[in-house]
Amino acid sequence: MAMLFGFLLSFQLNAQTDEDVLKTVYSTSLTNGKSYEWLDHLSNSIGGRLSGSTNAELAVQYTKRELEKLGLDKVWLQPVMVPKWVRGQKEMGYFETNGDIQKVNICALGGSVATPNGGLKAQVIEVATYKDIEQLGADKVKGKIIFINRSWEQELVNTFQAYGGCAAERYRGAAEAAKYGAVGTVVRSLSSRQDDYPHTGSMGYGDLPVEQRIPSAAISTNDAEKLSEALKKDQNLEFHFEMSCQKFDDVLSYNVIGEITGSEKPDEYIIVGGHLDSWDLGDGAHDDGAGVVQSMDVLRLLKESGVRPKRSIRVVLFMNEENGLRGGRKYAEVAKEKGEKHVFALESDAGGFTPRGFSFDCSDLMFSKIEAWKPLFKPYLIHFFEKGGSGADIGPLKNDDIVLAGLRPDSQRYFDHHHAANDTFEHVNKRELALGAATMTALVYLVDKYGTETITDEKEIKD
Amino acid sequence: MAMLFGFLLSFQLNAQTDEDVLKTVYSTSLTNGKSYEWLDHLSNSIGGRLSGSTNAELAVQYTKRELEKLGLDKVWLQPVMVPKWVRGQKEMGYFETNGDIQKVNICALGGSVATPNGGLKAQVIEVATYKDIEQLGADKVKGKIIFINRSWEQELVNTFQAYGGCAAERYRGAAEAAKYGAVGTVVRSLSSRQDDYPHTGSMGYGDLPVEQRIPSAAISTNDAEKLSEALKKDQNLEFHFEMSCQKFDDVLSYNVIGEITGSEKPDEYIIVGGHLDSWDLGDGAHDDGAGVVQSMDVLRLLKESGVRPKRSIRVVLFMNEENGLRGGRKYAEVAKEKGEKHVFALESDAGGFTPRGFSFDCSDLMFSKIEAWKPLFKPYLIHFFEKGGSGADIGPLKNDDIVLAGLRPDSQRYFDHHHAANDTFEHVNKRELALGAATMTALVYLVDKYGTETITDEKEIKD
Repeated sequence: MAMLFGFLLSFQLNAQTDEDVLKTVYSTSLTNGKSYEWLDHLSNSIGGRLSGSTNAELAVQYTKRELEKLGLDKVWLQPVMVPKWVRGQKEMGYFETNGDIQKVNICALGGSVATPNGGLKAQVIEVATYKDIEQLGADKVKGKIIFINRSWEQELVNTFQAYGGCAAERYRGAAEAAKYGAVGTVVRSLSSRQDDYPHTGSMGYGDLPVEQRIPSAAISTNDAEKLSEALKKDQNLEFHFEMSCQKFDDVLSYNVIGEITGSEKPDEYIIVGGHLDSWDLGDGAHDDGAGVVQSMDVLRLLKESGVRPKRSIRVVLFMNEENGLRGGRKYAEVAKEKGEKHVFALESDAGGFTPRGFSFDCSDLMFSKIEAWKPLFKPYLIHFFEKGGSGADIGPLKNDDIVLAGLRPDSQRYFDHHHAANDTFEHVNKRELALGAATMTALVYLVDKYGTETITDEKEIKD
Repeated sequence: MAMLFGFLLSFQLNAQTDEDVLKTVYSTSLTNGKSYEWLDHLSNSIGGRLSGSTNAELAVQYTKRELEKLGLDKVWLQPVMVPKWVRGQKEMGYFETNGDIQKVNICALGGSVATPNGGLKAQVIEVATYKDIEQLGADKVKGKIIFINRSWEQELVNTFQAYGGCAAERYRGAAEAAKYGAVGTVVRSLSSRQDDYPHTGSMGYGDLPVEQRIPSAAISTNDAEKLSEALKKDQNLEFHFEMSCQKFDDVLSYNVIGEITGSEKPDEYIIVGGHLDSWDLGDGAHDDGAGVVQSMDVLRLLKESGVRPKRSIRVVLFMNEENGLRGGRKYAEVAKEKGEKHVFALESDAGGFTPRGFSFDCSDLMFSKIEAWKPLFKPYLIHFFEKGGSGADIGPLKNDDIVLAGLRPDSQRYFDHHHAANDTFEHVNKRELALGAATMTALVYLVDKYGTETITDEKEIKD
């Protein structure tokens, strides 16, 4: 009886067209998805989840429990040592010009050292990019605070390109300024909007000796404009800022992993993931709470839609994408040690906005196979299939055989919120989030069904 | 010298490819668009602009002045008589069950009569659609408040389809209930979200005699759920609501029109528009402040991009789309009287969200001509070109020759805000709005350049 039932079920599923399956997936996600409810908890009951924090550990425990409720074949924690950096007291900054004091909104960049107790005060030199610091040279830079005021390229339609255009200012600015004797750096927030939010994000000192490291803050875009205007009138103005951030020894944390074991090729792995850690200023709803809950929902939506995957499908919630990538590296390291064959990895780490498609890191041949699936996505307004990057956490899995992909949601609003206090749950729309989860599920379903082989299955491509 | 300069300028423009022009248009809109600044004023300095209100007249004056600053060839007001309906005091509603009082969030539907002084209280009958009222019949309906609780079809990807699915409940519910002796109607808000905002919108009594008209309110989706739950436990619960809305005689208002007169075919008109009136609960930023400012920006962006149109391009800011469509009808009537040949009309009335493309109301032949332009839009992620509806205000211009089109922005968030107190400026993203204005400008540029003829210009289609 059990066998007969199994036969019938499998017959029914085979009778479903890909169009039918995608319809079920999207409709289940829109009417009965869990992403939004999970994100509400992650954002509002837990909050910002910086690596090494108690919140990060609460998020590990919460997502593990929720995955366990889904009836997956396996759920486990993968230990990984992560850096621990703590912001401390809320930062403050002001500048003083002709006896007037103008307060500004700043925050420490992640990884920065603190200012001396009582703050740091110095004259300011404005530069347009971090590369200008070398031109100025030690004579002019020594003893000063370097204000890197690189503007956002609004004309770029893809905001991630604009972000890429000024990411080095934030990451390398302080190290470069310190080389020439600066005492601190203040970096214009990497934001697409004029407002009062400072945006944090990682920075590094490279091989700079500890005693030469200088504090580095982000300043809101509105205050960057104010400071720049004031400097035009008074080159001698002084900037004061105070930050009490601190770095501690690495601590133990975890990647959270759940698996549906494959029915035909259990030793081939497809993974879907996002990162569980977030910056601490907001609640990390878009970056990357959205990617976490969508990835969890992929496995749930496959089950709810009656899909029984051939290959093993794993959800991986990576720890420490923001300031170390330790989770992504650990997952790849363990996969390599165990000789696990990973055929496909998909990351969602670009916000919970309306999905537009995917970018793929794979061979041209594989890409043309994937492109042939594009018409299946048309009813859901998914149109963007391009070769390009995938996601930071899955990057370490890269080899010649694996196909890597990144979900590409609408990018217009992402950098209004990214790494700032306004990356919060109320800025996530339930339907947009659910469409993203469905779009990921649809792609995972197709990759599992048709595989990532490009030579032996030419017939399938043409089908 | 002037002639030589004119020749050179025209030579330079001709040397520009369509790709170049679109690049200039998008980049100008993203870096130097005026839409957002205009919308800030319309939303925050003026506010909700219901037909016949002082705010609507302020909006007429403001947009006329701003158009005059653009150096167009003509700017004028087109008189039109509009209905005047006033909400009066903020509405209140509650239901009473087993001695407990539960307040609910309601608002009068536009065009509703008031409740009797002191409010209206009656037992409630819930129906799923307005068609169920007939089934119940006068016996059950008489003396009751009919609660129409039609739910939103979340599985539809295009939220306008879901809206269409329940728009008749709002518009016709009261007239239908009154026929069977109901004393009032309460309609579940037409919203894609569970929250506390009631959404207004127009309703009508058809040919129901004035003395038989009953008050009709919208109730928030959260409160609709509460009321429905409470009715399951207590069929005798009583609902109380108070509304003091009033209808006055028609008043004089205006469509606001600006024109760039065509250089080669000044007697052929291309129009682009949105509606200047809005509901009164929010500030009408998405509906349809966005369409107004984008349409104004189309003419400005053409000028800023150095495009000199062959045909006359008009921006038309229509009055009274929300509760009468008088502006749209008047514009078409005058155009007909004057024998003006309108070849193309484009409306933006679906919110200031990221544009995805257009829908077109035109012949198949013309549609295939337009589709050939699709690749030009790819860099801007504009992918949706479909046959379908256009816009309410331009509808009255329909004839066999004109091509009608509607901008189609991402629709996921629109009905979270539509006609509710949270349709406000802070929910509009500057870049999304600017991309919409650029997308409209690009289409107007192409239609002007290549025309809407489909027989005589086959060569152009193939180019």
